[in-house]
Amino acid sequence: MIQHIPSLDRLISELSKLPGIGPKTAGRLAYHILRGSRSNNEALCEALEQIKLSVRECPKCFSFTENEDLCHYCNDPQRSDRVLCVVEDPADIGRIDSSGAFRGRYHVLHGAISPLEGIHPKDIRLEPLFQRIENEKIEEIILALDADLEGDTTVLYISKQLQGKNVKVSRLAHGIPFGGDIDYIDFRTLGRAIENRVEL
Amino acid sequence: MIQHIPSLDRLISELSKLPGIGPKTAGRLAYHILRGSRSNNEALCEALEQIKLSVRECPKCFSFTENEDLCHYCNDPQRSDRVLCVVEDPADIGRIDSSGAFRGRYHVLHGAISPLEGIHPKDIRLEPLFQRIENEKIEEIILALDADLEGDTTVLYISKQLQGKNVKVSRLAHGIPFGGDIDYIDFRTLGRAIENRVEL
Repeated sequence: MIQHIPSLDRLISELSKLPGIGPKTAGRLAYHILRGSRSNNEALCEALEQIKLSVRECPKCFSFTENEDLCHYCNDPQRSDRVLCVVEDPADIGRIDSSGAFRGRYHVLHGAISPLEGIHPKDIRLEPLFQRIENEKIEEIILALDADLEGDTTVLYISKQLQGKNVKVSRLAHGIPFGGDIDYIDFRTLGRAIENRVEL
Repeated sequence: MIQHIPSLDRLISELSKLPGIGPKTAGRLAYHILRGSRSNNEALCEALEQIKLSVRECPKCFSFTENEDLCHYCNDPQRSDRVLCVVEDPADIGRIDSSGAFRGRYHVLHGAISPLEGIHPKDIRLEPLFQRIENEKIEEIILALDADLEGDTTVLYISKQLQGKNVKVSRLAHGIPFGGDIDYIDFRTLGRAIENRVEL
């Protein structure tokens, strides 16, 4: 749909580049921004600029941080130094941490192995992970990767590399989600839930 | 969910103010922006700034424009000056125009009458509409307002105000949408479709 307003068309095209935002949603957002107050718009703009200026990767775990040195999680003195939770994305850390079930350190791979997409072990932060396991005397790593082909490939690769090393490797349990109704669970999930059944 | 990164939390809170964007979607967008290239981010920022600087209301029809004087639709010499299509929002113009069924001028009310929300006739661009009808010798106005309580109230108000005046007032037909299956149409729409049935 042509709007005959170049700067509106441009904003719509920029907003459409965001994930999950199609041209129709982008149009709705752009008109909302246009109708909205100037201060709202400036606040959004400032937040966009600020985030690129002040956020950087933690040199130890590769999550995002604004700190000068290590991130919030690497700095926290109340966490165990011996257990490492390996995730694909920095956003996963917040989700895992709010479960309250893990109080160790994190390591962000920034992706997963995917030969089809040309992402090989050297393209993600695997080498630093192996170095950390060696240098920091890690006793256990928990692989909290996505339950898809790429996640499974990465889990396999890591566990092979660590074979014979003195470190326990585990992955998140696959099974029926909390509150899940067996009627609605797909057969792959059910298959994994049966394989990984827990003895009572 | 706390991210322990102030500028990320701020961007998420700003994005959550947009319509249809909840905190979860905002988080996903913010992480995408953080991971994305700096130039993408700058382009979005510039588009946001530009739109507020260059877009203003057309002094005649109150739609949005970047032109110095009148907007694209008011300037178009190929449109009839005698028929006016009245809409609630500037975004509605593009949709109506792309139907190809209307080639007159537009008038944007910037809202609809809603006593419950405290929006009275003086709060929307109704007075300028009545002035235009008088001054521009309008022969017909088509009310293309939303098919809800506020739209209906506004339609009623306008038609009452123009009673006795030498101007034809019509509203968009309500009925079964194109391609619609009678099985899935709600009873109010069906009721209107029967009331407004077209003789063959």
